[in-house]
Amino acid sequence: MKPPDQSGSLSASQKILHNRQKIHYHLSMTSLPNIAVVGATGAVGREIISVLQQREFPARAIPVASPRSQGKIISANGQPTPVQNLAEFNFAQCRLALFSPGKKVSAEHAPRAARHCTVIDNTSHFRMDPDTPLVVPEVNGHNISAPKNIIANPNCSTIQLVMTLKPLLQLAPLVRVVADTYQAASGAGNAGLQELNQQQHDLQNERPAKHSKFTRRLAANVIPQIDTFLDSGDTREEWKMQVETRKILGLPELRVQVTCVRVPVAVAHSVAAHVEFEKPVQVGDAVSALRDFPGVKVAGENEDFATPADAAGRDHVFVSRLRQDNSVKHGLSMWIVADNLRKGAALNAVQIAETLLTRDNA
Amino acid sequence: MKPPDQSGSLSASQKILHNRQKIHYHLSMTSLPNIAVVGATGAVGREIISVLQQREFPARAIPVASPRSQGKIISANGQPTPVQNLAEFNFAQCRLALFSPGKKVSAEHAPRAARHCTVIDNTSHFRMDPDTPLVVPEVNGHNISAPKNIIANPNCSTIQLVMTLKPLLQLAPLVRVVADTYQAASGAGNAGLQELNQQQHDLQNERPAKHSKFTRRLAANVIPQIDTFLDSGDTREEWKMQVETRKILGLPELRVQVTCVRVPVAVAHSVAAHVEFEKPVQVGDAVSALRDFPGVKVAGENEDFATPADAAGRDHVFVSRLRQDNSVKHGLSMWIVADNLRKGAALNAVQIAETLLTRDNA
Repeated sequence: MKPPDQSGSLSASQKILHNRQKIHYHLSMTSLPNIAVVGATGAVGREIISVLQQREFPARAIPVASPRSQGKIISANGQPTPVQNLAEFNFAQCRLALFSPGKKVSAEHAPRAARHCTVIDNTSHFRMDPDTPLVVPEVNGHNISAPKNIIANPNCSTIQLVMTLKPLLQLAPLVRVVADTYQAASGAGNAGLQELNQQQHDLQNERPAKHSKFTRRLAANVIPQIDTFLDSGDTREEWKMQVETRKILGLPELRVQVTCVRVPVAVAHSVAAHVEFEKPVQVGDAVSALRDFPGVKVAGENEDFATPADAAGRDHVFVSRLRQDNSVKHGLSMWIVADNLRKGAALNAVQIAETLLTRDNA
Repeated sequence: MKPPDQSGSLSASQKILHNRQKIHYHLSMTSLPNIAVVGATGAVGREIISVLQQREFPARAIPVASPRSQGKIISANGQPTPVQNLAEFNFAQCRLALFSPGKKVSAEHAPRAARHCTVIDNTSHFRMDPDTPLVVPEVNGHNISAPKNIIANPNCSTIQLVMTLKPLLQLAPLVRVVADTYQAASGAGNAGLQELNQQQHDLQNERPAKHSKFTRRLAANVIPQIDTFLDSGDTREEWKMQVETRKILGLPELRVQVTCVRVPVAVAHSVAAHVEFEKPVQVGDAVSALRDFPGVKVAGENEDFATPADAAGRDHVFVSRLRQDNSVKHGLSMWIVADNLRKGAALNAVQIAETLLTRDNA
């Protein structure tokens, strides 16, 4: 696949910036509203700060993290900025708070923040709460209603799956989705990335590789376990992909089966998906529908597929290897790759913020 | 999973060795029949020589390879042995020839060898020929009939899939199989392994990683292409898994859909499989059926899954993560791992040879 043209995905912020009379507060850095980035020292938190700046989001990012990171200096808004202590942080000074700490931290602090500002939470804690919208802006970003002032950002692999299923739903109703994932180490945060790097270094130097973040060695290996096991035999990650896909698409009965697997890749998740429809869907029509959908890049030719190395650092969801699946009456198989830290997490969270901003300033 | 007890899988050779009066030629090394190992310097060829020795196969291995390896000294039968030149090699001196060169070399030389001895060919060239049996001994090794004196060894990922499907077929007829693979670099031979190693070394030293054997960089990446593309959009590897599974199981109408993906692992392929049955199949019954099947190790508990690192160097096919798939009426999902050079190639070829030997000496 060719390097993507990212201009399309910048449009929300740019439209806002080019429509200045509606944005009463976009005057200078000091007059900008505050946006708290909670979990700012984590893999996703750092990416959120970077994406906010790249997209010229009209707010000043305040990095917030656990007490042990207090006072640490990180780059935000293009300048060195001290990290605030979450335990003492006053959310009344913020218009928005983008949370990406652990889910226990979100469970405790997101409701406190939501008394003062809208929270966009990247953890799994609130996602399946009926009063919490679970949002991928291109898919279900219209008329967001958040009674608790908390909006949930979906699971990373789920985002790239629903970004692909949504345009295909225009062609025919879905019957069943089977998806097997190839998920990058950064999905387990900085600790996951560091563990993979250390293991690779140890193997190169013929030393035994230890593991603690992952349940097996990940370097030169793959691990069919992400998150903990449920009584059903599914992992929690597999369950998340099932229930979150249904919730985001508004299809509570959709049949979804998933196996989630960690692979020794730093950034970008891949999904091998097999989708069954109620009616015939031609590959060419699927390519057209995907091509017209914002945030998706689709490959036309067999050889023109995307790999994690192509998608890392990019904003789009890359769909390739589209082909007829003749093992069911009306089936398509495909290969879906996206940067799990960007569209799978930080970018999607910032896009939710942009959606709120556009709505509030409309 | 615990390290497997490999004694069970040695039984064929051992039974033969302990039944000496039937084996008229097992007297001394010099009186042993010859077995040509063609492609002896390749990843699979070397493994065949090693497996023959480990299993005390009653024959003397003669390493044979392309002219450029002629005279090279490799270890065979526990001693340094010069490699013979395939172009000039006389198969009349052999009772068996185990081929694992490229498929073009097999296409040319296997029929010549088959005029003098039985050929077991590990390439894809003869596999779908109606007159060539495609054999996994535990699955369809009874009453092998080889009119052309050539027996084909199946595709590596296919072997571990059919080793799992065969015992499950005792419980209920199959409706459909969806399988996504996580295939090791050694499936592309020594060249694949070397390319992965070189790329990993280059990335560690922050040098650009080149690729030629694979169509993309494999280190720190995954590649959804194995073998070339067909007009259908499937790769030839995906097609092989479909048609070979049908042929080995004797189910020409079986519905199979596959996505084959290369992962940065040295040895051992993994398969995420989703199997639909005609009748209900309980996880416990599947575990029992798999446990009773020779050559399969099955995990009982969620956490007790196998990874490539567990399976590399082992003889068994490891089935784990067995769970109900509620997205179809009667479904099971599972995770299947096996050493692609052993059960996926060399071991299976030697087991075919053992099957022939047992039959001929019965």
